[in-house]
Amino acid sequence: MAEIRVKTSKRIEALNITELVEKTMRGMEGNLLHVYTQHTTCGLTINEDADPDVMRDILDALERMVPAKYPYRHSEGNSDAHIKATLTGSSVTIPCIQGRPAFGTWQGIFLMEFDGPRERKVIVTLI
Amino acid sequence: MAEIRVKTSKRIEALNITELVEKTMRGMEGNLLHVYTQHTTCGLTINEDADPDVMRDILDALERMVPAKYPYRHSEGNSDAHIKATLTGSSVTIPCIQGRPAFGTWQGIFLMEFDGPRERKVIVTLI
Amino acid sequence: MAEIRVKTSKRIEALNITELVEKTMRGMEGNLLHVYTQHTTCGLTINEDADPDVMRDILDALERMVPAKYPYRHSEGNSDAHIKATLTGSSVTIPCIQGRPAFGTWQGIFLMEFDGPRERKVIVTLI
Repeated sequence: MAEIRVKTSKRIEALNITELVEKTMRGMEGNLLHVYTQHTTCGLTINEDADPDVMRDILDALERMVPAKYPYRHSEGNSDAHIKATLTGSSVTIPCIQGRPAFGTWQGIFLMEFDGPRERKVIVTLI
Repeated sequence: MAEIRVKTSKRIEALNITELVEKTMRGMEGNLLHVYTQHTTCGLTINEDADPDVMRDILDALERMVPAKYPYRHSEGNSDAHIKATLTGSSVTIPCIQGRPAFGTWQGIFLMEFDGPRERKVIVTLI
Repeated sequence: MAEIRVKTSKRIEALNITELVEKTMRGMEGNLLHVYTQHTTCGLTINEDADPDVMRDILDALERMVPAKYPYRHSEGNSDAHIKATLTGSSVTIPCIQGRPAFGTWQGIFLMEFDGPRERKVIVTLI
């Protein structure tokens, strides 16, 4: 098990952490990679690692479904971030073959920042 | 592995099961906590365990995206609950350090009831 | 660990892969079943295995939230599929008791095709 810290630079951003996760898990052994975020206003997802427009479309769609500006109850002004975090989820798991995650051709892991910029902690576990 | 039973009290409700899960896993060993619901009209999510308004905002947002009243095909009148269950997911996984889930400061586990009140079964596994 | 290949027959479809997964995991040992899709335009979910109208309602609701036709940035014309994949997720995990997944009465595993028809790869792992 190892901890990664990443810095996001915008309020809403899809940060590609694939290489960082792969580097972190070197030397660790197991058949299942688990990546976890300890926060409630960001999420993790697996999606396309090629054309960055895909992640922009995903963030824009989430914004249309869950607008930042709305008369939410929670007084901190970041309810949209909590809602989007629940829609994307706090963890991803990927099977590992010979110590490497069995990603499909286009897959990468993204930290979905919904209330940045912040430093975020990600825990990488191999089972 | 252990089974928990919880009772929900409303049709739609976010039930904080963090303490119950932590109590249930005492004495079990492993590096990854897996929490699973055996139902198709409720879900599990990790989100803020401090201000209850956050979970109210999440439930309200899901209701705006997936209204209870709509001409759905499924005749049991709970299609919105099935859809919301797929959006939140049937399980959560959290890494464990020294037998305790490595929650972030604000994180807790919630059973997302979308078609209650009912008794719900939750399976807790440590891997 | 084993790989399954399935063929979908429509652009958007919920393919019940429960039996196929159960058949594939026979002889494998472990306490947690992990099912993973290596693609970025389909997802996996656990939901009702009885009335097929439930899955139709889920697909229809996803289409209302994320319409196929919209001025997305990504030029391949399948941004809605990527967005829906992130909303449903790339994997499901189910606890296993005596070598069998501990499904609830109504639960089944569905490959959520959002950009078919295609052949899709699914990786089944027991931990």
